Amino acid sequence: MRAVLEYLEAHQQQFIEELKAYVRFPTVSAQSRHREDMLRCAQWLVEQLRHLGLQTQLHETAGHPIVLGSTPRRKGRRHFLVYGHYDVQPPEPLELWQTPPFDPSVRGGVLYGRGASDNKGQHWAHVKALEAYLRTGTELPCDLTFLIEGEEEVGGPSLETFLKRHRTRLRCDAVVVSDTGLPGRDLPALTYSLRGLAAFELELIGPNRDLHSGIFGGSVHNPAVVLCQLLGRVHDARGRITIPGFYDDVQPLSRKERQRLRRLPFSERSYRRLVGVSALFGEAGYTPNEQRMARPTFEINGLTSGYQGEGSKTIIPSSAAAKVTMRLVPNQQPQKILQRVEAFLEKHCPRSVRMNFRPGHGCSPYWLDPDHPDAQAALRALRRAFDREPLLLREGGSIPIVNRFKEVLGAETLLLGLALPDDNAHAPNEKFDLEVFARGQHMSAWLWQELATR
Amino acid sequence: MRAVLEYLEAHQQQFIEELKAYVRFPTVSAQSRHREDMLRCAQWLVEQLRHLGLQTQLHETAGHPIVLGSTPRRKGRRHFLVYGHYDVQPPEPLELWQTPPFDPSVRGGVLYGRGASDNKGQHWAHVKALEAYLRTGTELPCDLTFLIEGEEEVGGPSLETFLKRHRTRLRCDAVVVSDTGLPGRDLPALTYSLRGLAAFELELIGPNRDLHSGIFGGSVHNPAVVLCQLLGRVHDARGRITIPGFYDDVQPLSRKERQRLRRLPFSERSYRRLVGVSALFGEAGYTPNEQRMARPTFEINGLTSGYQGEGSKTIIPSSAAAKVTMRLVPNQQPQKILQRVEAFLEKHCPRSVRMNFRPGHGCSPYWLDPDHPDAQAALRALRRAFDREPLLLREGGSIPIVNRFKEVLGAETLLLGLALPDDNAHAPNEKFDLEVFARGQHMSAWLWQELATR
Repeated sequence: MRAVLEYLEAHQQQFIEELKAYVRFPTVSAQSRHREDMLRCAQWLVEQLRHLGLQTQLHETAGHPIVLGSTPRRKGRRHFLVYGHYDVQPPEPLELWQTPPFDPSVRGGVLYGRGASDNKGQHWAHVKALEAYLRTGTELPCDLTFLIEGEEEVGGPSLETFLKRHRTRLRCDAVVVSDTGLPGRDLPALTYSLRGLAAFELELIGPNRDLHSGIFGGSVHNPAVVLCQLLGRVHDARGRITIPGFYDDVQPLSRKERQRLRRLPFSERSYRRLVGVSALFGEAGYTPNEQRMARPTFEINGLTSGYQGEGSKTIIPSSAAAKVTMRLVPNQQPQKILQRVEAFLEKHCPRSVRMNFRPGHGCSPYWLDPDHPDAQAALRALRRAFDREPLLLREGGSIPIVNRFKEVLGAETLLLGLALPDDNAHAPNEKFDLEVFARGQHMSAWLWQELATR
Repeated sequence: MRAVLEYLEAHQQQFIEELKAYVRFPTVSAQSRHREDMLRCAQWLVEQLRHLGLQTQLHETAGHPIVLGSTPRRKGRRHFLVYGHYDVQPPEPLELWQTPPFDPSVRGGVLYGRGASDNKGQHWAHVKALEAYLRTGTELPCDLTFLIEGEEEVGGPSLETFLKRHRTRLRCDAVVVSDTGLPGRDLPALTYSLRGLAAFELELIGPNRDLHSGIFGGSVHNPAVVLCQLLGRVHDARGRITIPGFYDDVQPLSRKERQRLRRLPFSERSYRRLVGVSALFGEAGYTPNEQRMARPTFEINGLTSGYQGEGSKTIIPSSAAAKVTMRLVPNQQPQKILQRVEAFLEKHCPRSVRMNFRPGHGCSPYWLDPDHPDAQAALRALRRAFDREPLLLREGGSIPIVNRFKEVLGAETLLLGLALPDDNAHAPNEKFDLEVFARGQHMSAWLWQELATR
């Protein structure tokens, strides 16, 4: 391993230049004018992986290409899939960037540019760790396949189709994904649980047009009032969700987990200041970190009804609508939850308005037992690379592909994120810490050792 | 009177063309981009009244101009003010109009266009009745002053200032306003009571920006959820308003009034079909007519929060807002009610969101004893014009200026509305019945006879 680690130390400048070249591709999957850039970037990736000696292909899809690169498969060796995505979020609003989003620059040990952290820099660390093995002639203890896609930021369907089609080649012992976060530069972390998601739109239809509130008001039910009544009863005063059965499948937080979450660095005052509220509010009996990482939620994302312009308009609006997403935790299932929500709303919706319940996308929560031998191996790799005791994290967000890997490939995922909380993912001035980049390469190098001998 | 009535019969087509020209002005007082249109329309009105021989002026105000036109004042003659407004409600949503709101068209004896019924068509009937007197050389039994303003739909303050400034010239025996409704084409009515109004906007401010619902959701109060909770508790299951003190000053419906209201033609089935709901809903213990004419209400006119576009956006919105208007009945007072509402909302609003309560325009309810001699004269004019026994109505709408006339000029108001219940006032496809338009001209012609000799 010494040669591998020395190679990594010696080549940081080269790696940074390569990452800058990678970030220069404006790979905005949501914007069709960047279609050509997406292809050019995928081709560049193919060249890079081929140059390392990987068996590499660019796979066309109905959307953006998927790049696959593998080391030779050897009998008796464990095989791991390393996932990343080369597409990025739109860079707008451009005027808020201190340097152009696709003209990466290094300032104070940090690389600025759209995609530097989410996700180019994070999977590039894995590519470079593999390079160190290959260039130094060090025996790679596992077989690896890189899968780098271009539709993560748009939730595109190409990856699922691809996984199903290439199920055999992609069969693996686990998937490694660096697309989550670590709480600080010296706080390495394995994320062992993610929240799931269930979305729906609720529309209440009242009169066949907006009615004059003077002529009709009092005798015709106002759908905006009913919407507030229906949604207003979803939470009780203690922040609990009152929908019958909502919590039925929730796996309770263990004492051990609560202890672990309490050890995370957290200042309520800084957190309040960060989000700009004078008081926090969440489900009673849980800490803010528990509430946002390990408890389910019911959030209204948008409300629309009646007149929203300047001044006032004295109407009973003909309809009122809400967009809602719920974050789910193990072992809640989106379909079951959506059915319970619909039943609850239907039960309480009066006959005087008509209700349209439109279920949207869903995503199951994710859970990997931290005692799983591969999780333990990942923790050892983190410990070696960062020289610190790693944290075990639950994350409040959702990563739908993790469920695809489990369903299609039957594989668990090791979430070894390298993004710092202030990396400005999805925001202007996205950045990637170059020390974390280097530590991430070490982590990846150690990971194959630890996973091979777990 | 024969010449007057014949003149009216002979000129219907001309009157309709004039009314179409009038409706073509997009006089949306709430939208500042129509400022110029407001002025052009007022100038057009001045021309029309001057052309009849009235002493006419356009009066600039801090808001939109007021048009005043008078017949010469004669000693010993009673003087009546005829009020109307040339401003209209916003036409949005435009896509629901079968023909453009400001491109009026006649279909099946009905004129379609924003403002056709509310209020251009209604006061145009009075202008045309006067024209019939003047063009036929028939002696006008009373002196008349037309006052046509442009801020009715926004509750603008200019009229009140104007009334105060021109108090002497405007001193009158009563005001005549056609801005209410009649229950059917052959059901003429005098409205002796109006509901008042109190408007406010409620804004709840949560985090300092839209937050990622995965990273933060559960630990930061969602202002859209709080908005629903606050507004959802305003009504109980029986449709009563739960705000303490809300009903304190309500003058109860007398037995006589309830009997009168019960005699109004009303079919619940037709009413349900008219508004397009499968069940009505209102305050328990009152009939639909009582609910909409003689009981106070609390209506949400608009809701806005977060993401309202296509698809979903997983956020905790940074704010949520509602526009609300309440209809009040004698003897509720807007200021007192607004104070009670604000206290109620403040009491129930949690510290985890910031509340902005912005009181808007208000208007006291109105009441005129139906036995008043001028009310009796008006009933006789209705009887002659429609050849039917007129009804005595309470109306659910509000006409704030009626209170101004009483306070500033000391004058009662005769409410002789010409709008049919399905005229779509304030809604897409507003229309005005041309037979009612013609009957309204007759009513106006007879009114001056009856009021002169009451």
